[in-house]
Amino acid sequence: MIRSKITGTGAHIPAQNVTNEHFLNHIFYNEDHTEIEQSPETIIRKFKAITGIEQRRYAPEGMVASDMGTLAAEEAIANAAIDRESIDLIIVAHNYGDMKYHGAPRDMVPSIASRIKHNLGIRNVNCIPYDIIFGCPGWLQALLQADFAIRAGDADTALVIGSETLSRVVDPSDRDSMIFSDGAGACIIQRKASGDSGIVNTAMRSDTSEELAFITSAGTNKGDELEPLFIKMKGRKVYEYALKHVPQAMKDCLDKSGKNIRDLKMIFLHQANDKMDEAIVKRFFELYGIEKLPENIMPMNIATMGNSSVATIPTLLHQVLSGELGTYRLSEGDLIMFASVGAGMNINALTYIW
Amino acid sequence: MIRSKITGTGAHIPAQNVTNEHFLNHIFYNEDHTEIEQSPETIIRKFKAITGIEQRRYAPEGMVASDMGTLAAEEAIANAAIDRESIDLIIVAHNYGDMKYHGAPRDMVPSIASRIKHNLGIRNVNCIPYDIIFGCPGWLQALLQADFAIRAGDADTALVIGSETLSRVVDPSDRDSMIFSDGAGACIIQRKASGDSGIVNTAMRSDTSEELAFITSAGTNKGDELEPLFIKMKGRKVYEYALKHVPQAMKDCLDKSGKNIRDLKMIFLHQANDKMDEAIVKRFFELYGIEKLPENIMPMNIATMGNSSVATIPTLLHQVLSGELGTYRLSEGDLIMFASVGAGMNINALTYIW
Repeated sequence: MIRSKITGTGAHIPAQNVTNEHFLNHIFYNEDHTEIEQSPETIIRKFKAITGIEQRRYAPEGMVASDMGTLAAEEAIANAAIDRESIDLIIVAHNYGDMKYHGAPRDMVPSIASRIKHNLGIRNVNCIPYDIIFGCPGWLQALLQADFAIRAGDADTALVIGSETLSRVVDPSDRDSMIFSDGAGACIIQRKASGDSGIVNTAMRSDTSEELAFITSAGTNKGDELEPLFIKMKGRKVYEYALKHVPQAMKDCLDKSGKNIRDLKMIFLHQANDKMDEAIVKRFFELYGIEKLPENIMPMNIATMGNSSVATIPTLLHQVLSGELGTYRLSEGDLIMFASVGAGMNINALTYIW
Repeated sequence: MIRSKITGTGAHIPAQNVTNEHFLNHIFYNEDHTEIEQSPETIIRKFKAITGIEQRRYAPEGMVASDMGTLAAEEAIANAAIDRESIDLIIVAHNYGDMKYHGAPRDMVPSIASRIKHNLGIRNVNCIPYDIIFGCPGWLQALLQADFAIRAGDADTALVIGSETLSRVVDPSDRDSMIFSDGAGACIIQRKASGDSGIVNTAMRSDTSEELAFITSAGTNKGDELEPLFIKMKGRKVYEYALKHVPQAMKDCLDKSGKNIRDLKMIFLHQANDKMDEAIVKRFFELYGIEKLPENIMPMNIATMGNSSVATIPTLLHQVLSGELGTYRLSEGDLIMFASVGAGMNINALTYIW
């Protein structure tokens, strides 16, 4: 059986560590441009209680998504121990392109994937680079696309990258600005003709009725900037949507795989919000009548890393494989699942045998 | 044999017709910020002689790429006479997202494909929308991706759209601003289990060494805007690159198809530049030792439509199928080829039996 197998991972975690205290001097506004009455201290305390976020990472000014993606890719290539000239396909997931500073123009001509191929010094003209725009689930979607290309016989080796500088699109007058961070993750995925390990199956879902307006681009809450410059999220709507649909999408994916939930070793979930992620996994198991979560089922890095969009899942995977996330470890034959939700709204899930 | 077959096409050609005279009051500058000494009349005359462009189309202010893409998609769906709820995949090629006016922020959160799915009123949650960034060859690349998904068994019906408002990213002080235009084209492509018609094979090429700098985003030639806001092209470099590599990529594609060049009925080439396109096709036939081009081999619309990036090929195809381009007609069984070149630099080609 032909399967697509992850043979190397990498991540770039920006150096600048921004704690919640950084936001103490911000004045926060509601969507209707009125000032929020609570003190910044209270707002930040509540924020931490809901999201679990204590710190996030920002890239230094001038470092752009393609720079971070290049560093993550270099590590993934080294980790997979492949000749970079053997890569057939480079897919980069992002949503804002290269932005040199906060509010800078979004630049993706040429594509971020072309820039990364250039930075990596790859000269193979048959290595095809392109970008995909799919909200936060973009990296997982890029992985699915690499799998399509491998199974269709059009690629043997793909480099799949997620890179984003969300710190450049946050509205300082919006509490949600505290959620977002910068980062890049990458993997090498290769065609494998024998054995069980690799991608087993996938599931996707898209809702674009009222859900289209849940995560958008708009002006500041304060009202002094009406351009669609900043990331805007209707937090409660996103939470309700995710909790309603992600567990079912995960169940659809697992059921299609023919595998048993009791064999599931780990879930790599998009790092959106601590409480939300926990509620999703809890409900997922409840769909199988399981009330008590298995131990060590969901590695998390959101407390120190924030939500770096397309970068969260590959970074999390790389951290687990590097032994950087406590006792979380993967062994050959482990059944794992990836799942993600974000702007669109889009959901995707994937089962994988390590 | 499973093949992916185009079953419907559509296009949106913006209402505003902008003639070369529109540029008579422009002051043009070189890349080094020096004013060009020739008069606008002379510059425009030479421009027309080289590119063949007499007119181009601009979308009215406020109409964005997703609006135009929706109109083209509506026509393609009607033309294919399918139930829109049966669409499994919507792929939109663009490079700048939605921009409401000249120089406006580029907005693609949520993705342009999600916006179009919303506009089309499609409620099928299994219809997955995403965007691809691949320079001007993006629409053809999206078609290839739809073909991958269809051949991998992950989609039966796909909607493939190219939409771009290049008028919003032209630098008024750059002669090249006269090349670019706005537009959208779309097609429905479907899985077909029997018969010869459909996509036969594809070829791609990517060069990202010095070629990365041939088409970029930068400030104005006049020098008053240093942000990467405007499309910039090293015209001579692009011309030399295209002439060196596109004919060979087309030959590689045709040779792999096992078809004979004598059977080739029509070539749909990205409408970049009249003289360049003619030189490419001439050299392609010369690679087979054929000095005299067959009649009616290459439909062109650049004289009145300009270069609308990802929209040129689907618009051209739709115009030929609608009998709007003189005597150009396609009949069942006709062998045709699509080919494109653009920012990256990227090249792709595809043979197709109509």
